[in-house]
Amino acid sequence: MPDDVYAACCPCRDMLDLLANKWSALALGALEDGPRRFGSLRTRLEGISPKVLTVTLRKLEEHGLVTREVFAEVPLRVEYELTPLGRDACAPLAHLRTWVESNIHRFPAAA
Amino acid sequence: MPDDVYAACCPCRDMLDLLANKWSALALGALEDGPRRFGSLRTRLEGISPKVLTVTLRKLEEHGLVTREVFAEVPLRVEYELTPLGRDACAPLAHLRTWVESNIHRFPAAA
Repeated sequence: MPDDVYAACCPCRDMLDLLANKWSALALGALEDGPRRFGSLRTRLEGISPKVLTVTLRKLEEHGLVTREVFAEVPLRVEYELTPLGRDACAPLAHLRTWVESNIHRFPAAA
Repeated sequence: MPDDVYAACCPCRDMLDLLANKWSALALGALEDGPRRFGSLRTRLEGISPKVLTVTLRKLEEHGLVTREVFAEVPLRVEYELTPLGRDACAPLAHLRTWVESNIHRFPAAA
């Protein structure tokens, strides 16, 4: 079967669902400059709830886009970092974020 | 205020939410080759329910990405077509869809 996001049973569909998501797009972009802790991500992704951020990061980790590293310190330090796959996924997501920012004034609801 | 998808109160955030969505990305892409009727979109977006397709198209219409034209025929013909804004939004979404299809074999869950 060719890889096709339009085919309901193609794994591409699920990965599109994972990436074509506001919080995934923002979280991966926030990690482009280097690893961040949970609290730092929460601040950067203004308005995200801790629960939604946890779920978002867990999904990104499960699908190999982000790693989660725990440092045995007091208090415990947990850092999230892009994998090579996650880093590559940043290009199309940055394209989408930049397109929205550049074209926002053309949207009737935002006028 | 600069246009910033990371700012919770910026309208960009809502428009990112609208576009960074699997069904929006697939629906806009399906309209790239020209207008389509509801049934044709439903076939192309394999697996979408009529309800979800209706909601998706209504949101895209409300935000100026798609027009809905009703032709006074029996049976009634309703066509959906990209606006110039919708057409421009296709580029970053095509980038994302293509990236997923080209990189799907790198995702651990899809292995």
